[in-house]
Amino acid sequence: MSLVIQQNVISLTKPIIEEGITSLFYNMLPTSLAIADLGCSSGPNTFFAVSEIIKAVEKLCQELNHKSPEYNVFFNDLPGNDFNNIFKSLDNFKGKLHDEMESRIGPCYFFGVPGSFHGRIFPSRSLHFVHSSYSLQWLSKVPEGINNNKGNIYIGSTSPSNVYKAYYKQFQSDFSYFLKCRANELVEGGHMVLTFAGRRSNDPQSKECCFIWELMATALNDMVSQGIIKEEQVDTFNIPQYNPSLSEVKLEVINEGSFVINRMEVSDVNWSTLGNQNNDFYFESKISKQLSEGGYNVARCMRAVAEPLLVSHFGDAIIEEVFTRYKEILANRMSKENSFINVTILLTRKA
Amino acid sequence: MSLVIQQNVISLTKPIIEEGITSLFYNMLPTSLAIADLGCSSGPNTFFAVSEIIKAVEKLCQELNHKSPEYNVFFNDLPGNDFNNIFKSLDNFKGKLHDEMESRIGPCYFFGVPGSFHGRIFPSRSLHFVHSSYSLQWLSKVPEGINNNKGNIYIGSTSPSNVYKAYYKQFQSDFSYFLKCRANELVEGGHMVLTFAGRRSNDPQSKECCFIWELMATALNDMVSQGIIKEEQVDTFNIPQYNPSLSEVKLEVINEGSFVINRMEVSDVNWSTLGNQNNDFYFESKISKQLSEGGYNVARCMRAVAEPLLVSHFGDAIIEEVFTRYKEILANRMSKENSFINVTILLTRKA
Repeated sequence: MSLVIQQNVISLTKPIIEEGITSLFYNMLPTSLAIADLGCSSGPNTFFAVSEIIKAVEKLCQELNHKSPEYNVFFNDLPGNDFNNIFKSLDNFKGKLHDEMESRIGPCYFFGVPGSFHGRIFPSRSLHFVHSSYSLQWLSKVPEGINNNKGNIYIGSTSPSNVYKAYYKQFQSDFSYFLKCRANELVEGGHMVLTFAGRRSNDPQSKECCFIWELMATALNDMVSQGIIKEEQVDTFNIPQYNPSLSEVKLEVINEGSFVINRMEVSDVNWSTLGNQNNDFYFESKISKQLSEGGYNVARCMRAVAEPLLVSHFGDAIIEEVFTRYKEILANRMSKENSFINVTILLTRKA
Repeated sequence: MSLVIQQNVISLTKPIIEEGITSLFYNMLPTSLAIADLGCSSGPNTFFAVSEIIKAVEKLCQELNHKSPEYNVFFNDLPGNDFNNIFKSLDNFKGKLHDEMESRIGPCYFFGVPGSFHGRIFPSRSLHFVHSSYSLQWLSKVPEGINNNKGNIYIGSTSPSNVYKAYYKQFQSDFSYFLKCRANELVEGGHMVLTFAGRRSNDPQSKECCFIWELMATALNDMVSQGIIKEEQVDTFNIPQYNPSLSEVKLEVINEGSFVINRMEVSDVNWSTLGNQNNDFYFESKISKQLSEGGYNVARCMRAVAEPLLVSHFGDAIIEEVFTRYKEILANRMSKENSFINVTILLTRKA
């Protein structure tokens, strides 16, 4: 995800992180705190959440006059993630964190954890606080039985009903298993803050989550009609993600049964604000300027997300062409459908 | 270190690893086992020690009819190490391990730990078994006050006495601090198996550890006399390592005070056996063949060790030339001085 979007999301989830940390501390007063960021990626985004979590803990320790804990920080992503880059950036991160804090913080130990969170990646009862932002909408695989999703690359307005049913079923299975794995890995009373790219509407074909992919499908379909790529290639390409609604997330948590829901929130982030220097989430004028040009900001964010999937299916020869077309389509058609939806939940591992 | 040397060293230390694991199990019967390999590097070597440790545990569990523990495996090296490569090789390693074992092994969780073992890198009381092979001879820095070590790049036969004293002092300080850090990180009764590139002789200027570097200095000095590099450059270049004797290692362990010494061993590995298909350590005919040509095998091993240091001091333009000359010098002069010495210790963290 882009730096600016991640800044937005962290600003929105910060109070929820603080609520989770406060609850954890009042119940446990831990001397050692194991924090995992699942789907941490590699880049400046990687350290946002961990930084907020450590700051929240230190603030609380000062308020409670409690000694800072020892931090064990686990950065998780798939084995193909650039962990080397994370590890080389750690000194810089630690330096910035120390500069930002007024007092000394507890000793920090950092670990890279390669593996999919759609399975066990941590020892039993080893974590106190799990964070994941904009990763859990990714499914473990493309749902089966959606061969008839012609002309679409995700759930689209023209998708047959079996398509969104298959997507939803895959989400249910993946998220339920995710909860089960984390339930084994968290200590009793441990917390999770999970943010999904989700939706407000009960309708899984709602434009709020599907439109952005429909426009990418439009770019691909245009290239089919001009003979640049084959129709069959687009028909067999589907994005392995699902944007759940709050009630769909809630249902899985209740059914799985290991967690108490402490808080659920839905919030909108307007794509068009991303490049606006005057909004709260303004980060760096250079990036801001880059992002403010028409469909460029959205295309750039989506490219970071979709490029690996497109390359693996279509090869890399057509990629520039796809994103040039996508950018134009976005600039022409994104005026009214210009929000993305965060679904955030705070959970506690039951005793 | 080269694949073949590492195979040698692991074959020699395997009984000591097994002794440590047996002692750990009889005293603790752990359900979860945290293993750290310090200075794990990146390549096929990386998994040798961990593989032997897990096999030793599983063998013992079968003998004792004890349930396999959960394994938490920590791969440590400096942040510049290629952890991406380790993480991408993990599936292959796990597959091989499962194939080699007759029964199911306990669940394994893998972590990358970037940082220098000359400082704290793990939480307090978090490890059961620490392994380190051919890393601990590396000092945290080049010793101070050895500006008069002219024409040498390590302790040489012509080095003034202050040079080896400074090297020894740095070793004492580094190894003592290493022990202190690990004492904090290991649980009571936890074990360490440490293998140094060391020496048998009490004389730190002994050829058994210094000669190989003296020959590299010869290559560099030849290049000075031919005006290819400046004399001053060689004079200011010193290798930050120390090959301790068994008694020097023992002394630091006793002085630091946190560990009981269970076993100490010194063994020789003859450089010339590395390419011999008939020895115990024969690994793969291809590598063996590559290594059997004159000084090539030794030059190749030493290049892996010394190249980064040489490049950072002299730049990369002269590297091919240095190793071409070094290979020739080794082929001519290594006939009688052709062993390297392992010093291995097994330690237990005192209660």
